[in-house]
Amino acid sequence: MTTQQLHEQILQKKSFLCVGLDPDLTKIPQHLLETEDPIFEFNKAIIDATHNLTVGYKPNTAFFEAYGIKGWMSLQKTINYINENYPDIFTIADAKRGDIGNTSSMYAKAFFEDLNFDSVTVAPYMGKDSVEPFLAFENKHTIMLALTSNEGAFDFQTLNTNGKELYKQVLETSKTWKNSENLMYVVGATKAEYFTEIRKIVPDSFLLVPGIGAQGGSLSEVCKYGMNDMVGLLVNSARAIIYASKGTDFAEKAREEALKVQQEMAEIIGLKLQV
Amino acid sequence: MTTQQLHEQILQKKSFLCVGLDPDLTKIPQHLLETEDPIFEFNKAIIDATHNLTVGYKPNTAFFEAYGIKGWMSLQKTINYINENYPDIFTIADAKRGDIGNTSSMYAKAFFEDLNFDSVTVAPYMGKDSVEPFLAFENKHTIMLALTSNEGAFDFQTLNTNGKELYKQVLETSKTWKNSENLMYVVGATKAEYFTEIRKIVPDSFLLVPGIGAQGGSLSEVCKYGMNDMVGLLVNSARAIIYASKGTDFAEKAREEALKVQQEMAEIIGLKLQV
Repeated sequence: MTTQQLHEQILQKKSFLCVGLDPDLTKIPQHLLETEDPIFEFNKAIIDATHNLTVGYKPNTAFFEAYGIKGWMSLQKTINYINENYPDIFTIADAKRGDIGNTSSMYAKAFFEDLNFDSVTVAPYMGKDSVEPFLAFENKHTIMLALTSNEGAFDFQTLNTNGKELYKQVLETSKTWKNSENLMYVVGATKAEYFTEIRKIVPDSFLLVPGIGAQGGSLSEVCKYGMNDMVGLLVNSARAIIYASKGTDFAEKAREEALKVQQEMAEIIGLKLQV
Repeated sequence: MTTQQLHEQILQKKSFLCVGLDPDLTKIPQHLLETEDPIFEFNKAIIDATHNLTVGYKPNTAFFEAYGIKGWMSLQKTINYINENYPDIFTIADAKRGDIGNTSSMYAKAFFEDLNFDSVTVAPYMGKDSVEPFLAFENKHTIMLALTSNEGAFDFQTLNTNGKELYKQVLETSKTWKNSENLMYVVGATKAEYFTEIRKIVPDSFLLVPGIGAQGGSLSEVCKYGMNDMVGLLVNSARAIIYASKGTDFAEKAREEALKVQQEMAEIIGLKLQV
């Protein structure tokens, strides 16, 4: 998928919501545990209920790997289900990978070829040759951690390096890498005031924004400082949507929560288009 | 496994070699491709041929994930085979994981519980709450990236942050985390001169050292600057050992290469014990 196609989908759905799929067997509705693949059945119901309100799905690989082979099979079924039934949806493997070049090539193969995701999240610590193998794939997107939404973000990401915070250095350096136009960045919603600075460095890039909902970030604040002409934001919400109910009505309740966010987004996009 | 047990194994085998299992279907001997699970058969043969020369095996998860569910099954079979047949061997899931707390907990469950590895590699960029969930597991070890062996290591890891390089800041900060005694660190062999500085910060920790062999690092240099009283090093070699031959003699040739490294290590340990 190209960023142009992603942008068109955002305007069409009046949404830049991404639903995070973090399926946890201790949190999903009990009645699903009787099915052969509870994780897939849970994801499928959430996807069917929300697909016209969201432009992206972001399965978090940890929540599949924790269940071993069975979990990896659920991940495969989930991405196949999205690609077959809702091919216009932007898919993100939230995997936070990154290693020396020949190893990153194998990760890229895993997520872009074997599983056929549109994008994958990566960590920047190992630098250029750990990320460029992902960037080599045409019409695939590599979403690199810049400033994350967790407490530990302040351990290293905001350290002063040669007069600027590390995350800014990461953003700037990454722009010099080969095929850097295939980069997007993770920027946590819990730090809306940082978006102004970030947009000075990467005005045109899409930003994947976690931290809305359970982690406490504000959508309007993020949009105020983070939007660009392409909208340029994918705002992720996981727990607040997928665990809105633990009952048999979980998919319906998930849709209601997604609809609330989508309506807020539609209003923001509407105001922006009028300007 | 405790670090004491690891140390005992090092003295007994006169080796601190770790064999990296990076199985690539385009590189393994052709005759294995006719078997039902070529990756597992390859690993099994390498393991059977080298287990008394090495104290650790380090499957690199990327090389399994690239083959999807079949690859994850090969990983499961490989770790089970080691645990069942060579329970004294230290096992490392080279996965470079790390995410917000609840996600890192799922990764820890995947590698420490579901797959039952002794250790897993993690990336530091997301800070304290991305690593502490791994550290909570007793007698399991979390091997954090400090200074890696690749070219991109110089993009961010050696940036000056408040008067010291980022990797030193990472080492120092990590010592303040809960259960930090369960930390080990990745330090690339291609930068032997850095070990002196690193040992000032983490004198007692085990260091996992990639970059010997195909990546060009020198074993004697690394030992000169990096060894401590517990030996304190796990030196990884992958390609130089596992791809020593592409013929039917691949396991035998792998053993020959492993033996060369082990003999060099035995000499170094012997000299050290005389001191």
